[in-house]
Amino acid sequence: MAENRPLILISNDDGVISKGISELIKALRPLGDLVVVAPDRPRSGASCAMTVTEPIHYQLVRQEPGLLVYKCSGTPTDCVKLAFHTICERRPDLVVGGINHGDNSAVNVHYSGTMGVVIEGCLKGVPSIGFSLCDHDPNADFTAALPYVRRIAATILERGLPALTCLNVNFPVGALKGLRLCQQTKGQWTNEWENFAHRGDANYFWLTGQFENQEPDNQLCDHWALDNGYVAVTPVTVDVTAYPLIESLSFMADPSFLTED
Amino acid sequence: MAENRPLILISNDDGVISKGISELIKALRPLGDLVVVAPDRPRSGASCAMTVTEPIHYQLVRQEPGLLVYKCSGTPTDCVKLAFHTICERRPDLVVGGINHGDNSAVNVHYSGTMGVVIEGCLKGVPSIGFSLCDHDPNADFTAALPYVRRIAATILERGLPALTCLNVNFPVGALKGLRLCQQTKGQWTNEWENFAHRGDANYFWLTGQFENQEPDNQLCDHWALDNGYVAVTPVTVDVTAYPLIESLSFMADPSFLTED
Repeated sequence: MAENRPLILISNDDGVISKGISELIKALRPLGDLVVVAPDRPRSGASCAMTVTEPIHYQLVRQEPGLLVYKCSGTPTDCVKLAFHTICERRPDLVVGGINHGDNSAVNVHYSGTMGVVIEGCLKGVPSIGFSLCDHDPNADFTAALPYVRRIAATILERGLPALTCLNVNFPVGALKGLRLCQQTKGQWTNEWENFAHRGDANYFWLTGQFENQEPDNQLCDHWALDNGYVAVTPVTVDVTAYPLIESLSFMADPSFLTED
Repeated sequence: MAENRPLILISNDDGVISKGISELIKALRPLGDLVVVAPDRPRSGASCAMTVTEPIHYQLVRQEPGLLVYKCSGTPTDCVKLAFHTICERRPDLVVGGINHGDNSAVNVHYSGTMGVVIEGCLKGVPSIGFSLCDHDPNADFTAALPYVRRIAATILERGLPALTCLNVNFPVGALKGLRLCQQTKGQWTNEWENFAHRGDANYFWLTGQFENQEPDNQLCDHWALDNGYVAVTPVTVDVTAYPLIESLSFMADPSFLTED
């Protein structure tokens, strides 16, 4: 690979054969040399999980000028860690996750394997972006998103991002009205399990659920942007310290704390 | 279970038969009725992963006055979600993860299944605490930690925590000098893979690594506290928005952003 072109590391959580990662490769190819290290099977909801109980394996599956594609038996986080350690010949200039089939806005940032890719890239000190489309269909139409994907990636390649920060970019379905910088929508998942009784045992459940938006009218939120046809760019920090609490809980550091009633 | 006693939901990532969760049960039993829903096998490094590709199953394995213990085939996050949806007869007053066999300070908060438990409890709006001991030994000695575990849990049961925040509590090995409120140590894992060539295929790797502390002398950090014999209490937020970036990246919201060169 050419030393003078940017190196972009790509992974996802839908797996190496998903349409979303193919579309991402297509969008980013003009920007640099691409190394793709993606799970060999769907890993949706993998968060920042790592494989600690067994070894993982990777294999080259496609090689073209400026593009290497590997499948890996590990999680999205494993893929990024292994790419940095072993697969990439030089340090990537950008790490990109996606394009995910499904919404990773709001609290989904915590569960997302796509954002697992991005958080790992960020922890390694490399500017990192996750792209997701609010459509779970394996044949989802990514056409409207691709110019934004390329432009955002090119911008971050050029300008970088502050330490300990990365981007979570979500696309609504359909025509795009523009782009908004957003905050993470507060809310929670409800009705999360569907009973799936099996051979007379009622204790089987399959994950499902509805997202209950606690601030549906807050125009600063990523969920609002998506509901109203905008690309939602939510900057994310990997320093999750709740700084104000350090002061308000300082009474716990008093030597009397352990013995008081 | 008595309606007037607090209900404490417990889970972990080392699995339902680990010593750490037994010690946690012992420490918290005086504080309320306990419902334990924990993975049926080790799930270290599970982060906030969820099981989406298959149903999960749970089963009652121990029942005593004030204590119900269930094993579950899902991840730590699944355990908490299922407990809230199906297993708990009323809403828990406190969610506790641990006691983990191993350090969850610094950037490990992102990978930890123990903190997956805690983040899920927090997202559900319940005060939540994770406890971890910096010792991976399955027979680790939790004795010194237990009075702190009980006292911290009792305090948070009584006072609660602000919305969207939870606690990541780590214990050093050996005698404890006291307790410090801390921030998440910055740093990264290096040398993360050990080659594990198998049947002539060199592309097998097992996760390992060393943590490279980027601020070893910063006395505000959880890693420093642990290195110096203190209990490290790191408050954590589940709102991971990088708020300062919303303003500094606002140029991307300009309609010309997509077309500019």
